[in-house]
Amino acid sequence: MTFAELWDSLLPVGLDTATGGYRRYAYTEADLACRDWFYKTALERRLRTEADRNGNLWAWWDVASATGTAVVTGSHLDSVPDGGAYDGPLGVVSGFAAVDLLRDRGFVPSRPVAVAAFSEEEGGRFGLACLGSRLLTGAVTPEAARELRDGPGTTLAEAMTGAGLDPGRLGADDDRLGGIGAFVELHIEQGSALDGLGAAVGIAEGIWPHGRWRLEFTGRADHAGTTRLADRRDPMLPYAATVLEARQAAAACGALATFGKVVAEPGGANAICSAVRTWLDARAPDQVVLDRMVGQIEDTARRAAEAQGVELRLRRESFTPPVEFDPALRERLARALAARGTAAPVLPTGAGHDAGVLAARVPAAMLFVRNRTGVSHSPAEHADAADCEAGVTALAAVLEELAGA
Amino acid sequence: MTFAELWDSLLPVGLDTATGGYRRYAYTEADLACRDWFYKTALERRLRTEADRNGNLWAWWDVASATGTAVVTGSHLDSVPDGGAYDGPLGVVSGFAAVDLLRDRGFVPSRPVAVAAFSEEEGGRFGLACLGSRLLTGAVTPEAARELRDGPGTTLAEAMTGAGLDPGRLGADDDRLGGIGAFVELHIEQGSALDGLGAAVGIAEGIWPHGRWRLEFTGRADHAGTTRLADRRDPMLPYAATVLEARQAAAACGALATFGKVVAEPGGANAICSAVRTWLDARAPDQVVLDRMVGQIEDTARRAAEAQGVELRLRRESFTPPVEFDPALRERLARALAARGTAAPVLPTGAGHDAGVLAARVPAAMLFVRNRTGVSHSPAEHADAADCEAGVTALAAVLEELAGA
Repeated sequence: MTFAELWDSLLPVGLDTATGGYRRYAYTEADLACRDWFYKTALERRLRTEADRNGNLWAWWDVASATGTAVVTGSHLDSVPDGGAYDGPLGVVSGFAAVDLLRDRGFVPSRPVAVAAFSEEEGGRFGLACLGSRLLTGAVTPEAARELRDGPGTTLAEAMTGAGLDPGRLGADDDRLGGIGAFVELHIEQGSALDGLGAAVGIAEGIWPHGRWRLEFTGRADHAGTTRLADRRDPMLPYAATVLEARQAAAACGALATFGKVVAEPGGANAICSAVRTWLDARAPDQVVLDRMVGQIEDTARRAAEAQGVELRLRRESFTPPVEFDPALRERLARALAARGTAAPVLPTGAGHDAGVLAARVPAAMLFVRNRTGVSHSPAEHADAADCEAGVTALAAVLEELAGA
Repeated sequence: MTFAELWDSLLPVGLDTATGGYRRYAYTEADLACRDWFYKTALERRLRTEADRNGNLWAWWDVASATGTAVVTGSHLDSVPDGGAYDGPLGVVSGFAAVDLLRDRGFVPSRPVAVAAFSEEEGGRFGLACLGSRLLTGAVTPEAARELRDGPGTTLAEAMTGAGLDPGRLGADDDRLGGIGAFVELHIEQGSALDGLGAAVGIAEGIWPHGRWRLEFTGRADHAGTTRLADRRDPMLPYAATVLEARQAAAACGALATFGKVVAEPGGANAICSAVRTWLDARAPDQVVLDRMVGQIEDTARRAAEAQGVELRLRRESFTPPVEFDPALRERLARALAARGTAAPVLPTGAGHDAGVLAARVPAAMLFVRNRTGVSHSPAEHADAADCEAGVTALAAVLEELAGA
């Protein structure tokens, strides 16, 4: 089976034909179909499959002579709302394709090798990104995870039970982590740095510290046609001021700040809102800059709220400290690729990844594949077929290096 | 039955106990329960009931000796999302209570008298305010009305069919309008002018021209953590700039402009939006000022969109020209109240009402009842019991004047 055939076999699952985007949210029908695809693909390759206690999937290339800690590759199959096809799945499909390539060459690993798919990486359903890898490493407690709710109010525990999994087993899995010697995630680049550098494949340097803050502006619902401006307590105004300030602060700090989700209550077109709930996504090259930027945004939000007689509640919902990927592993990847004639530039990234979570517990690294549009979390995301092939070749080289004799 | 008992009999219907607000949307369970209340209340008073072809309800005080055109009072029973108890229902309840009061006094009308309740006045479900009275007067065509959709996509035609009504009969009803000599709507004031003047009851002068504009900012979905600021086409930024400009323009024009409804697509907290859809509610003392203000807001929206590489589509969804209530009828009301010792100030209003729609076809007038909080379209809306009683007394005086010998 070629890479293209393998890629095409997953492509229709969870596609929204109206938007051209994917809606593969954890434990929904689309996600369960992705999981079925994972099992079927592994079975066709005689890989041994398992779902771990946190709902992450594993496909093991068992070789009798293999010893020592495992070399694991993989990524995730879930998507943001209307996400692209590559973000996540490219790493899983490339993992299987790299195993095919190594076998075709007659390579026999001297260590166990696995392809993994982590649950709810995007946080698209339950709001906490990298949920599967966070549970695995103990970065979130099973008690907190079980009570996470999706939009309509279903808990993670209920969703897992509905999918035939036991939420009572959720939790950190030290034995499994102890058995992993290296984790390498291949991922489409979520920007256009590789395109600018003319490279098909890159290596991740580290992940910017980033987090999500929930802001709730509470004013007073009132009639849009009769309430004098002076009598209003309209939460939409400080929200708007905060959106504009966030962009200015990010530009001044060389960082990123985004408001992509906003809910106006009660949301009548002829009524002043009683409340505006929104989420700030903020990322910066280092912690000091991130703190300064978020502080500036918060100051503006508070002042603008006060000026309108509006109350502001601000709470950090999630936070990921900076990650620097294992320098020794990174060097080994670069050398292995250079030896095969591939010059892979080293890039930082603002995006969180399961590899970033796992990096706290096992040597971890990432390969990026060039994104021709530079667009991500959108149907416009795109990797050329030749670049995907280059990614598989690079990943196979890395697995050969790490799991070789 | 006292006014308080009558008032209390409607109070629990459609109350959201979590917010303390009402969710009485046309043809939903709560609205059908309001309609049942209307029929039951009319029946207890031996008033003849009917639903007209547009779903508006009528309760007729038939007197054999009555001749000529009818005197009609009434308002609406539906609500905005989380609306207060008084907006609409106070006029219907007061209509029944005024009939009780007149009968207690032994008054026999020389003209037919009716209490009416108009459908979907708020546009809370199908998005077009005063839908029932607009259909009655031909201000909206039955073809357009049948295709109006609620949030989940149900059409008005489907909702009416579900409620046992025939949407095929929708349309202007000239015979009915020709039989009406005067329409007087009692309504809670949706501001605090009466409170400031120390008056329990006021008379409407006219309704400001007002309308609703739909703005759709279309940018490009992208990853919040990896897309450089310079590469973004984020529709949230021009939306925020437009919100702030609308407030400034309204203040400068002595007018009102509100953004109370906003939908961000796809709405992920870690993704730049692909689109932001929102609705501008704009009202001004006259047409020239309204046009100037909306023009200013549109200019800012276009410039801010262009600066971010975002596309803007702007469309006027509804518009109500200025209404001046019939001066002769207004004078007659003022004299009738003055003769009974009630000084009722004359007030303009920015809010649309069924009386404003009917004013295009029949002599129409409005009575306002003092709102102690000045708040409207919110559970905080409030009229004191004594002011409600004063409203009933005033309405009875007006009906006596108009339907007397």
